[in-house]
Amino acid sequence: MTPNRGFPKAEYLRRVAATQEQMHRFELDAILLTCERDVRYFSGFLTRFWESPTRPWFLIIPAAGAPVAVIPSIGASLMGKTWISDIRTWSSPNLTDDGVSLLAEALTELTPSTGVIGLPHGPESHLRMPLGDYETLRRSIGHRQLSQDHNIIRDQQVIKSELEIAKIRHACAIAGAAFERVPEIAMEGRGLDEVFRNFQMLCLESGADWVPYLAGGAESGGYSDVISPATNVALKKGDVLMLDTGLVWDGYFCDFDRNWSMGASNAATQDAYSKLIDATSAAAEIAKPGRTTADLFHAMNAIVTADADETEAGRLGHGLGMSLTEWPSIIATDTTVLEPGMVLTLEPGVGVGDKILVHEENILITQDAPEFLSPRASQQLPVL
Amino acid sequence: MTPNRGFPKAEYLRRVAATQEQMHRFELDAILLTCERDVRYFSGFLTRFWESPTRPWFLIIPAAGAPVAVIPSIGASLMGKTWISDIRTWSSPNLTDDGVSLLAEALTELTPSTGVIGLPHGPESHLRMPLGDYETLRRSIGHRQLSQDHNIIRDQQVIKSELEIAKIRHACAIAGAAFERVPEIAMEGRGLDEVFRNFQMLCLESGADWVPYLAGGAESGGYSDVISPATNVALKKGDVLMLDTGLVWDGYFCDFDRNWSMGASNAATQDAYSKLIDATSAAAEIAKPGRTTADLFHAMNAIVTADADETEAGRLGHGLGMSLTEWPSIIATDTTVLEPGMVLTLEPGVGVGDKILVHEENILITQDAPEFLSPRASQQLPVL
Repeated sequence: MTPNRGFPKAEYLRRVAATQEQMHRFELDAILLTCERDVRYFSGFLTRFWESPTRPWFLIIPAAGAPVAVIPSIGASLMGKTWISDIRTWSSPNLTDDGVSLLAEALTELTPSTGVIGLPHGPESHLRMPLGDYETLRRSIGHRQLSQDHNIIRDQQVIKSELEIAKIRHACAIAGAAFERVPEIAMEGRGLDEVFRNFQMLCLESGADWVPYLAGGAESGGYSDVISPATNVALKKGDVLMLDTGLVWDGYFCDFDRNWSMGASNAATQDAYSKLIDATSAAAEIAKPGRTTADLFHAMNAIVTADADETEAGRLGHGLGMSLTEWPSIIATDTTVLEPGMVLTLEPGVGVGDKILVHEENILITQDAPEFLSPRASQQLPVL
Repeated sequence: MTPNRGFPKAEYLRRVAATQEQMHRFELDAILLTCERDVRYFSGFLTRFWESPTRPWFLIIPAAGAPVAVIPSIGASLMGKTWISDIRTWSSPNLTDDGVSLLAEALTELTPSTGVIGLPHGPESHLRMPLGDYETLRRSIGHRQLSQDHNIIRDQQVIKSELEIAKIRHACAIAGAAFERVPEIAMEGRGLDEVFRNFQMLCLESGADWVPYLAGGAESGGYSDVISPATNVALKKGDVLMLDTGLVWDGYFCDFDRNWSMGASNAATQDAYSKLIDATSAAAEIAKPGRTTADLFHAMNAIVTADADETEAGRLGHGLGMSLTEWPSIIATDTTVLEPGMVLTLEPGVGVGDKILVHEENILITQDAPEFLSPRASQQLPVL
């Protein structure tokens, strides 16, 4: 069943209240957000226009009260359809002052004269505004400080609400339907670039709003790499084809892959593939509240590597939701404690000769056993 | 004819040499790049993996010699296929040191002890690494300074080579073919969201590698907004449908739109549409070396507005190439002098009652009259 688009205002009120509680704890007088995910998380402002790097967009979470948007006027109409009512705009691009004085004015109004303003600045965060403007902003707010956000935003986003989960579940179902139809588009003699193109069409036909991410590979007995664009090299007998998609429905991602053997696979390939399935099963077995992402890493790593070293990719899964990848990371050093509402990918990889195989599923942490949001891959490597 | 993918090494050598000449002029000992476009421009590193915000990627342009890549090990294989030979990797994500010490070490090795390292920090630039890591980096390079890049990177990228132009021309032709087929997918009663989905499929079927951007609208006599996602409201007689796509071929974008009337249009709509076509013609007429982007703005603005005010969108076109939007801006205050090799969008908008109409074409500045890279829209608003 297709979920409703958007969120009720109560969802945003809850997000803001929870964030303000943490801001109070860390004595932050405001949080300043500049990135797509963060602005959307608190406002509901959903547009592909972020693809244009030209204009900066700002959302301020004050210590109390509703967020304030300081945005280019081209976004006023769309922001006006969200629950945000305090929307301040300027005509952007402005080559001498691209919203900086308007932003400084808003921060000055919303915080005390020696206030502390947090920005996301830990792992996985970026500053989506020109560095020069950031420095100008710092000089334009009197004795106020621009500081870190103590990971408040990240820690808030890592637990998904039921309504968010419904959207991710739907995105996963769409990708699952597209993967089911891969036999229609992948056959010996067809270039991998054509398969990529056709698979994106299947994702759209299955209901994706858009397809921000597709990676994969196809080589004899595995692939060399999982991030390269497709070439026109044709699929041939003995190849293992892998497609990994991050498609979006109403702003929420899935991120999982599927593998196929072109013709019957040999024992080494099938054995490697089975290890990947076993690894995801082992991780799912223990993926319950109280365990950590490091526990998931070790459960999978024990199966996919002989010596328990880290794999080349460095991690065996990650958070997922409004971005293709989110906090936390399934690595040995990330000891994030699992909680209900976390959505994770399990993404073990295994070496086969000079190639690799990678498998990925999406799970939801619940009070009990995890829910597989992606339709689980079969234990046997499917043959095309 | 489909151009070759990628670029010969000579193209990168030329880009680096031209940049180093400017670095010498501004006394920069290195430039540090963190964003997709900039890293790709000098290395050829093309991957959709940037969709994941987790890992930072760095490319250093030294004062002399080839660029040095400091990147997560997951990218080593793909970077190894480019012309870059000095590739330094770490296993990312690393929660305590995500490449910062490796980057500091490389900068220390490549620059004198009181060296100045430029980063893009003017309009349209971002810092794609955590702010906290940026601050740590600053403290980890001795007496070296992190400074601005004097817009060297931007000014270099604004002039496209013949090989770059061929890719943009090809992307435009693909979108042109998809727009030709819109009558197959847009009809009364069909939801705009379905039209969006189907149009992306047409783009892929016509040869797009992927479709990073699609916007549009469809309302009676115009649309309220050009950046909103599509809703399921059905197309109806009297609507003006607009689709605006930024599709990609081999890492290069087109960015233009088309309008259609659902059934016969009224005189006001047709008149507004004609103004848009006339505005692009007026701009194209004067789009020659020596004129400025401000001149283009005034040529279009005189036609689309009575009082020569700026439009709500703030600009009437922009640069285009490796990003959907690039420097310069067609606004009254941008006096960038046109040069052969610049690729621009002409994007006038006009108000009709409480709605707007927008039209966009892509042109190449040559020694003489500009070349239209997009197949020009018809003078009459086409009817569906």
